[in-house]
Parts: sequence; structure tokens; C-alpha cells
Amino acid sequence: MRLENIGEFGLIELFRKSFPSKNKRVILGLGDDCAVLKTNPKKFLLFTTDSMMEKVHFDLNYFTWEQIGKKAIVSNISDISAMGGEPISCLVSLGLPKKMKTDDVLKLYSGMNKIAKLFRFSISGGDVFLSDKIVITIALLGEVKPSFLKKRSGAKTGDLLCVTGELGESQAGLELLKKYKKLTKFPLNKEILRKHLNPSPRLKESKILVRNLKVTSMIDISDGLLGDLFHILEESKVGAILFKEKIPVSKRVKKITHLLKNSPLHYALHSGEEYELLFTIKRKDIESLKKLKIKVSVIGEITDKLKKIEMVDKRGKKRVLKKRGYVHF
Amino acid sequence: MRLENIGEFGLIELFRKSFPSKNKRVILGLGDDCAVLKTNPKKFLLFTTDSMMEKVHFDLNYFTWEQIGKKAIVSNISDISAMGGEPISCLVSLGLPKKMKTDDVLKLYSGMNKIAKLFRFSISGGDVFLSDKIVITIALLGEVKPSFLKKRSGAKTGDLLCVTGELGESQAGLELLKKYKKLTKFPLNKEILRKHLNPSPRLKESKILVRNLKVTSMIDISDGLLGDLFHILEESKVGAILFKEKIPVSKRVKKITHLLKNSPLHYALHSGEEYELLFTIKRKDIESLKKLKIKVSVIGEITDKLKKIEMVDKRGKKRVLKKRGYVHF
Repeated sequence: MRLENIGEFGLIELFRKSFPSKNKRVILGLGDDCAVLKTNPKKFLLFTTDSMMEKVHFDLNYFTWEQIGKKAIVSNISDISAMGGEPISCLVSLGLPKKMKTDDVLKLYSGMNKIAKLFRFSISGGDVFLSDKIVITIALLGEVKPSFLKKRSGAKTGDLLCVTGELGESQAGLELLKKYKKLTKFPLNKEILRKHLNPSPRLKESKILVRNLKVTSMIDISDGLLGDLFHILEESKVGAILFKEKIPVSKRVKKITHLLKNSPLHYALHSGEEYELLFTIKRKDIESLKKLKIKVSVIGEITDKLKKIEMVDKRGKKRVLKKRGYVHF
Repeated sequence: MRLENIGEFGLIELFRKSFPSKNKRVILGLGDDCAVLKTNPKKFLLFTTDSMMEKVHFDLNYFTWEQIGKKAIVSNISDISAMGGEPISCLVSLGLPKKMKTDDVLKLYSGMNKIAKLFRFSISGGDVFLSDKIVITIALLGEVKPSFLKKRSGAKTGDLLCVTGELGESQAGLELLKKYKKLTKFPLNKEILRKHLNPSPRLKESKILVRNLKVTSMIDISDGLLGDLFHILEESKVGAILFKEKIPVSKRVKKITHLLKNSPLHYALHSGEEYELLFTIKRKDIESLKKLKIKVSVIGEITDKLKKIEMVDKRGKKRVLKKRGYVHF
């Protein structure tokens, strides 16, 4: 059996089964956006890591050095925000080719540093080593008040399923970049590329949500709406029904449907690296949700049909959906 | 200017100068074995990361999968022990080729897990991604009582310079492995390879030292005795004199001098990845040091000659040494 046969999530599941870990300080280990550690009675530590590899996660034909650095940090902040926490400090591990220009490394680092400053934490150290291809691994430490901690588990039958922002632009943008090869040849409004090249984490939204509502589960969309919804369903041991017309398909993606291989809805369901928050709330909180000044759509409901995702349209026509998130192997 | 021109330490120095970071929770940022964070009044957090890249840090011709996993964790524990702390939890980021056998990944992970268990912490999560060459990045979190925290800075003129264990085997072992190419063709006692293939961190020794003596500065030997001594001198703004005959040159290296390119002393001075502790103590603590049940050699003294390393032999002949630690670019 080779990795390409079991995929990223198959491998992680295998680690979980083969090496169950018990440790009184680890509240949550493998299987959520962050590990949760107890070192202090008042706040839990959140601990996460995410890597970006040249040609796998980014292409030097489209990305500037600064954008690569920024995105590497953003994906980690997104994991902290998915748990309801705030970042404290990060370490940066850089695998770099020896022929790389020092100025380019500084631009990369500058991108990381700008995002860290913007979100009020600092890069506290790291490691550099030789590598043919550029590889960036960030380890980010955050903290969360125990009452604000949100997990993938916790969604209950009848809860409402919600998502921030609009969906689909990250994958659609990437497809367009691949189609036109170079940014200089890109004929459209570059706004459609923002989510892929210059994403933002939903840290502010996460803070507002956990402070104002009973959020029962939460995750960030890095593997696609369906892929990440499936993670919630798996950990919460429930199912979900999506309201087709309520899914916030990006207006920009809709406008350029003729240039894309798939329907706008397809991108909204499968696009990874969106860094939006997918979460569930108690039904009674719907009015409180509407009062919050953040863009949120109620896109479905939690059902008792274990790990089953259905979609219903306004005419009542139902179909079962298969997850197809981005799998790295 | 390219990375190969400025080297690993030149790059880190450039980061420090270009992006000075100020953050009230960061007690120590770039420039020591770990970052030191204050999130709790009673204990400081230690935060470190270290990577291993195929062909750069290990070769599949010599290492078993389990040994690679173990060494990846050991190098990080060594950083925690250099600061006087204890490990709490780690994250593992794995870049893996898609054709890699799942069983081999499990052996790799098993090696990491065994070391984590041995030192009573757990792997709490991580990330996996596609990579042509295997790349392993560990982020390790530890903690330390503020009074036990040791830094590279703190050595004072007149302090004694000490080192645990014996030195030279890691680099000598690697040279022999390269010479004989495959482990199956290795004609000597394999004990000489232990430090390179199966290193141990000096966590127990660190605990004993910080609890019983006034250790004024400490570092682990990952870049070679001279390279790491230089880090202490730089951060403490002092110099050092080494007593040539007191340097604990590995007896096994001495035995096989005829097979090596350099003198045994050369290996003791320059061999990286030794994971021994290099530290300074107050002169008055020499008697207390002798009573501790750990192998330690007093190898020199701290002087006021800024960043200058001299070596004196028993006849009183003195010479100035140049650092030549392992530089990754």
C-alpha cells in the first residue's frame, strides 16, 4: 500500500488508530484544526502547524514572495480562529535552495512578518535548511478561554449550519491562473484572484461569533465546504442537509462561468483554501446571528443521518452529495 | 547576493536585524535554542522547531525509518534541554512522496512516537503534504521554571566552560558511513555510528545541572563545539580559552584515526549533531559539579576577549581557533 492509495486523511486516520496518545495535558490531539493543551487553568493553549511546498501549494509564476509568506501564516491563523482562539507566537521553518536570492528570502519573511504584526503576534524563531524546492512550515501557538473553545465535534441534530463570506474563488482563481499561465497575461479583473493569492483569516469573525452565540462546532474551510463539513459530521457523529440556493456562491465566480470547467456551485462546494468559517449554532440563536455585523449565511441543518450530506433545492428535490475535498496524495 | 554566500547564520542574523520584533509575551525571540514565551506567571513556555531533509540531514542508505523519526524528535528535545526545560507536546509536519509505502511512514511515525513516550510527552497533531523528497519538521513545546531557564547569554569572565559526554562521533560516524556506503558493508563495530544514527538528548543531565548548580549559560552542540561555543560568546559578549587535553575526544574516534581524514581533536571541535550540553558555571561550583553523577568535563574558561576562542596545551602553547561549525548553505 502506498500513500497515493490512502490519501492525506487516510494517513492521518491511520496515525490516530496506530498510535493512540494519552496525556493528561493534551485535551485534544490529532483530528481537529489545532491541538488543545492545558498548561494554565485560565486559558488553553492552541497549537497548530501548516506547510506550503513550491509547486504543490504555490507557484512562483503567480505568487509574489510576499504573498507566499503571507499565505503561509494566514492558513495557520485560520486554524486558530476555527477553534475560537487568538494567536500568540509562531516559529518559521524554511527549506530554501542555495541559489535563492537573499532579497527574495527577505521579501518572503517580510510577508510573514506583516501578517504577524497585523494580528498582533510575533515570529519568535525557527529553522532554515537547504532544499531544492522551497518549503515553508509554520508552527503557531495560540490561546483560548475554555468557554470559547470550539471543536469539530459538538454539532447536534437540529442545529443550523452556517458559513462566513462567499465561496468558490480560491479554486476558480487557481484554475484561471493555470489557464493564463502568467499574471501579466491575465485578462480579467484581478479581484477574482484575491482569495487564492492574498487570503485573509476570519479571526475577527471568530471572536464575534464565540462571544455572542452558542456555537456548537466550528472548522475553517481549507479542504472545501463538503470536505470540511464532512469533518464536522464525522467528529460530531451527525449528518447535514444543505439548502442549495442558500450556499453563498461567489458573485465573481458566477460572472465568469463561461471561462471555467465547472458550475459556480461546484466551486462553492469544493474549493479549498477559502479560510471561511463553517460552524453550527443552536436554532434559537438565529435572531442573535442576524444582529451580528458579519457576513454569514445559514446554509443548512444538522440531521441525525450519520456522515450523510444531502442537498435540497427550493422545489424540494433532494440528492446525496459526496465529499471531494482536496486530497494531497 | 545568494543564500550560499551568506550561510545559515548570516541569514538568521539578517532576519534579526531586518525584522526586530517587540512583543510583551516574548521573553526571548530569534537567537537562542528556543523561543521563551510568558503565558503563565509560574512557568515559561519554550517553543522550538527543527527540520530534517532527505539527502541533507539523513540518507536512506544508512538510516532505518524508525531512526529517522527518532532523530527528528531528539534534535528538538535537545533544544529544550539546552534551555533547562522539559518537553510538553509536539506537532509533526511531514512532506512525503506519493509513492512512499504506508508501512514505511508508520515506521517513521513509530520512531517519533517512541521517543515522545520515553520522554513523557505526546505528538498532538501535525500536517502531511506531498513532496519529492522526505522532509520532517517538528515543532516542540516545552516549559521551564523561570529560575531554571538557561540562555546562551549569561557567561561571565572567569566562569568555567564544561561539556557533557564525549565528542566527535557524529561526524566521524557519518564520514565512515559515506566511505562504506551501505550499512551492510560496514566492517567495524557499529557502536561508532550510534551518535549519528541513534542520538539521545541530554534531558536528564540538563535537569540535574540546573537544579544543583549556578549554570550561567547553556547551549546544545548541534553545530559543533566551536560553532556553538561561538554562539555563547556572541550572546554573552565574552571570549573563551580551551584546555586542549581536557576536551573529551571520543575514545572510539581515537581508535579509528587511521580510517579518518582528520585528527580525533578535529572531530571533537567541529562535529555537529552531538546533542551534548555545552555550559558555563561559576568557578566556586566546581566541587558541586564533581559530586553530580553525570559525565562532564571542564574544558576551559571564559575570558574577556570578545568572541575570541583560544586553545592552550599542557606546555602552555596557545593558538587562536576559528569556528567552523556545520553551515547549511
